[in-house]
Amino acid sequence: MMAAETALAAPELKQALAETAGTIEAALDALLVESEGPEARLDQAMRYAVLGGGKRLRAFLVMQSAALFAVNPTCAARAAAAVEMLHAYSLVHDDLPAMDNDDLRRGKPSTHRAFDEATAILVGDGLQARAFEVLADPDTHADPQARADLVLAFAAAVGPRGMVGGQMIDMLAEGKALTAPEVTRLQAMKTGRLIQFSAEAGAILGRAPPELRQALARFGRELGAAFQIADDLLDTEASTEQMGKTAGKDREAGKATLVAILGPERARAQAELLAEQAAVHLEPFAERADLLRALARFVVERNA
Amino acid sequence: MMAAETALAAPELKQALAETAGTIEAALDALLVESEGPEARLDQAMRYAVLGGGKRLRAFLVMQSAALFAVNPTCAARAAAAVEMLHAYSLVHDDLPAMDNDDLRRGKPSTHRAFDEATAILVGDGLQARAFEVLADPDTHADPQARADLVLAFAAAVGPRGMVGGQMIDMLAEGKALTAPEVTRLQAMKTGRLIQFSAEAGAILGRAPPELRQALARFGRELGAAFQIADDLLDTEASTEQMGKTAGKDREAGKATLVAILGPERARAQAELLAEQAAVHLEPFAERADLLRALARFVVERNA
Repeated sequence: MMAAETALAAPELKQALAETAGTIEAALDALLVESEGPEARLDQAMRYAVLGGGKRLRAFLVMQSAALFAVNPTCAARAAAAVEMLHAYSLVHDDLPAMDNDDLRRGKPSTHRAFDEATAILVGDGLQARAFEVLADPDTHADPQARADLVLAFAAAVGPRGMVGGQMIDMLAEGKALTAPEVTRLQAMKTGRLIQFSAEAGAILGRAPPELRQALARFGRELGAAFQIADDLLDTEASTEQMGKTAGKDREAGKATLVAILGPERARAQAELLAEQAAVHLEPFAERADLLRALARFVVERNA
Repeated sequence: MMAAETALAAPELKQALAETAGTIEAALDALLVESEGPEARLDQAMRYAVLGGGKRLRAFLVMQSAALFAVNPTCAARAAAAVEMLHAYSLVHDDLPAMDNDDLRRGKPSTHRAFDEATAILVGDGLQARAFEVLADPDTHADPQARADLVLAFAAAVGPRGMVGGQMIDMLAEGKALTAPEVTRLQAMKTGRLIQFSAEAGAILGRAPPELRQALARFGRELGAAFQIADDLLDTEASTEQMGKTAGKDREAGKATLVAILGPERARAQAELLAEQAAVHLEPFAERADLLRALARFVVERNA
């Protein structure tokens, strides 16, 4: 079944996304408790950075892939919350003055503006550690093999060969002319690997056979690539108000995007092709993956 | 057996420390491979931050506690290397302009001076992820239960309730008058928890009974407290050349230390008492823990 053939309409997906966002918000709220000591400022800043924002796309991938293997939703929500903590940390550090120097995130002041730079650095450091702690906790999965596998795949996705390495390339690439393959590789590392992990996480939690885990990994990889192009199109086309973060900033910073290299029409066509290819990997799951198929359409059609 | 009764002389400990430092340097060198892509700058900066420096005190604790349970030294060295990566990341972030703003570390320019601030932020982020990846890798332990336990204890030690939370309190405390119990709590979080984990790690790797793991945790906790006082005494007394980092800086920054509160004599007596108490927890291991006993003496007697 191809993405275009899905029977699910956008309202059903939007409802499912909203439900997941509510579930994850509650999970994050419970996992990020404010302490009594003077370190409470750190807890407050971590909560500021993580709660009340974002589409929770990555959490949705974890929850939906977990549902394919009948994983306990409470356990899946913990893993999904860990992914959102990691994602939030990456945004906090990306926004720092020494990095992208952005004052606005999710429609409110970025963490270093709302608190201060030192606190924002520690927020990122703390959220990363807390994400690993949640994944390794027996409450997330009774089987230590599943927990160790989760941590291993997660660490690889967000480390120097994944997200952090991609961010390094992105910093170095500012103002330089990258080729399309170079941009594709950068984005696969910077944002693709965590999205791929999110789609894979359900298979790890569900102790799924390797071929089904791989199918979800491939779905996630192509979905992540489609998502990034769509995000870059939005950065070009949308207003700051629509985005909830400073729009047009990547272009101003001379950031390498496929939109800049291919032009918006070809970039959009590429994103749509990737979303369709992503959906092909969902065939083994038949109609049980219809929400994931609808998501693949959504990421290239969304306007905020 | 009390620390003072140990039969081991300082030269034997120094030789064992030097051997471990060599083992860990080789393990870190093998675990931090420089990649081919443009992200190689990150790998170079990570290697700069981690290799060729430090007493490797935490690694020594991991190796020695692992030896008590006949853990394969190659596996123990991987866990020890992960701890040193984490420690190095904490130093890189602590030295950032927004934090302690220190230009010197281990006798050479700190990472943000040798590279740049953005790279130094990513070095810390990448080292933390890589440390977790190494701990969760089957090469570190064949039993997933041991790997999951390692990750869980490690994450708790270095997260918002441990190291990062302690760093937050430390930043907030600058120029403020803390009480001795407040300083003790701050330091137990900021440096104590990771030292405690290092001592515990061998018991986790060795699937030791809970009471032996707890004995090592208690040894590590008191050793960590003694170590921190000794470090603060050195900051007051030693030269920048001896320290390999800017000396006298904590006092200038108005940082809260027990040395400032109690005065050097009482602080030294406190450190010596803690080191002796730490050694008491090693009794179950008889003479097999003599190197750990010697270490407890060493941390309060060292002059660099």
